[in-house]
Amino acid sequence: MKGKSGMTKRLAYLGPPGTYSEQAALAHDAEAELLPFPSFASAAAAVDSGGADQAVLPIENSLEGAVTDTLDVLIHQSHLFIRNEIVVPIHHCLVIEADADADQIEVIYSHPQSLAQCRRFLEKRFPGIGQVASLSNSAAVEDMQKSTLRAAAIAPERAAEIYGARVVERGVQDDPNNLTRFVVLATSDHPRTGADKTSICFDFGDDAPGILHAVLGEFSSRGINLSKIESRPTRRTLGRYIFLVDVEGHREDPLMAEALASVEAQVSTFKVFGSYPMHVSSAV
Amino acid sequence: MKGKSGMTKRLAYLGPPGTYSEQAALAHDAEAELLPFPSFASAAAAVDSGGADQAVLPIENSLEGAVTDTLDVLIHQSHLFIRNEIVVPIHHCLVIEADADADQIEVIYSHPQSLAQCRRFLEKRFPGIGQVASLSNSAAVEDMQKSTLRAAAIAPERAAEIYGARVVERGVQDDPNNLTRFVVLATSDHPRTGADKTSICFDFGDDAPGILHAVLGEFSSRGINLSKIESRPTRRTLGRYIFLVDVEGHREDPLMAEALASVEAQVSTFKVFGSYPMHVSSAV
Repeated sequence: MKGKSGMTKRLAYLGPPGTYSEQAALAHDAEAELLPFPSFASAAAAVDSGGADQAVLPIENSLEGAVTDTLDVLIHQSHLFIRNEIVVPIHHCLVIEADADADQIEVIYSHPQSLAQCRRFLEKRFPGIGQVASLSNSAAVEDMQKSTLRAAAIAPERAAEIYGARVVERGVQDDPNNLTRFVVLATSDHPRTGADKTSICFDFGDDAPGILHAVLGEFSSRGINLSKIESRPTRRTLGRYIFLVDVEGHREDPLMAEALASVEAQVSTFKVFGSYPMHVSSAV
Repeated sequence: MKGKSGMTKRLAYLGPPGTYSEQAALAHDAEAELLPFPSFASAAAAVDSGGADQAVLPIENSLEGAVTDTLDVLIHQSHLFIRNEIVVPIHHCLVIEADADADQIEVIYSHPQSLAQCRRFLEKRFPGIGQVASLSNSAAVEDMQKSTLRAAAIAPERAAEIYGARVVERGVQDDPNNLTRFVVLATSDHPRTGADKTSICFDFGDDAPGILHAVLGEFSSRGINLSKIESRPTRRTLGRYIFLVDVEGHREDPLMAEALASVEAQVSTFKVFGSYPMHVSSAV
C-alpha cells in the first residue's frame, strides 16, 4: 500500500525484526517499509516527527491484559490517533538449528513471558531441561544460535525464518486463546466504514469516579455498546483515575457525536483517540 | 497485636526485608512476626495453608497504576478476603556506605523503576554516573556494599537501617505524589466500622460489557459512591473482562447488601473480596 506521498508506507514498531509486533505490522501492510524502534514511545515519536507514517503498538493481550506502556503513550505522550486495530494470534513455535536434533536439547531460550506461556509443554517435552531468559522472542533465536550448548528456542515462526532456523513444532503455548490486539497510530483516524469502534479517555478532576455511571449512561441511553473500559492513574494522587473507554460506532455517527459532546461537557479532561474499523473476532 | 490464637500475628509479605512491602507490614502491625516470601502468590498461599495469619500485598501505585499480579491472585488463586488497606508514601533515599563520601560516587544501584522515579534528581546530582539495576530496592543496598566501585543506592530508609548503611538525602524521588496502596489478606474480612469500603469482582459471561452501566446503576441509584474500577482479562478471549470495583460502605450496610444482591443476579460470576476500613488520604 502507498502512503500519502505516493511512497511506500513507513511503519514503526518495537523491534527487533521477528517479534510479534513485526508480524502485526506485516499483517497491517505487507508492502510497508518496517522500521524497528527500541521503545513504544520512540516508535510513536517517529510518527509525530514525520520519520514514520504510522506506528503499530500492542495494546492488549487475552491472557495478560492491557499493555499499560501503550495506554500511557496514548494518554501522555502523543498527539496521534488510532487508525486501525489488528489482532494477532500468538503461536509459539519450538525452534532449533537447521541441523540439530530436538531430542538432544540441553537448554531452551525465550522471553520469560513466553517460557511461562509454554510451561506445561516444556515440562512434558523437556523435563528437567534448563531454561534461559532472552530479551525478546526474536532474540531467543539468536541466543540459541550463539549458545555453546545444544539449544532450542520458543519463538514466532517469523523469527525462525529470519534467522534460518528450523521449526520443529507449532502452537506449543499451553493456552490456545492467546491473542494480542495491536493499534495502528497515525496523524489522523479512519473514515467511517459502518462497522467501527471509537476510543476515548477522560477524567473527572477532583470529582469522585461516581459520575462514571452518568457518563456511561450517555452511551447506553443512545443504544451505543461499550466494548471496553480501563483505568490508569492520573499520576497526581491515589483514587483519581483516567478512564479509557471503547464504544461501538464512529465519532461521526450522529448519535455517537451527541454522546461524545455530552460526555465532554461533564468531565474535566477529554480526548478522542479516534474511530477505526472494528476487528471481527473469529474466536468464540 | 495478637492473632486469633493469642500468639504474635504472622504477616507474610514479598521479601527480602527492607522493601516497601515490609514497611507496609510494619505499618499494619509493628509487633507482628514478618515472614518474607518470594512471590505474591506464595505469600497468599501461606495464609490459605495456615502458615501465616495475614498477607500484605501492594495493589496500586499512584504513578504506575494497578499491581496486576495482586489482582490476579485475588481473582484466580485465593479464597482470602481483604481485611485492611494501608497506604505507604514512597520516599526514596540516597544511601551510601557508613564511611563513604557522596561526592566520590562512581556507580548507583537500584530497582529500574526506582531509578526511573529519581531520574531528574540523579541527572542533576550525579551527571554521567553509571546506573546498575538491582532485583529490589532492598537488594540495591547489598549490591552497593558488595561493589568494587565507590557505590551508592536508591533505597528505602528501612533498607539502610537493616544493612547498616548511611542515608545522605531523603525524598529524592522526582514526583512527591508517590504512594502505594497495600491490602491485607486474611481468612475473613473486617467488621463494620462506619467508614468502610467494599471490593467486589464480576464478569458478564458471554454478554457484552454494555451491561456494566446497569450494574453501576445498582450502586449510584442507592447513593453508594464508586471509588475505583479496573478490568482484567477473563483469559478466555479478547473482549471479555472481569471487572474489579471498589464502592464506599460495608457489605452489611442494608443498602449495600441490597445493591450487591442485585448485581449478583445480573452477572455471570460474582465474588466479594471483602469490606474493610477505608484509608483516609492526607494527600490533596
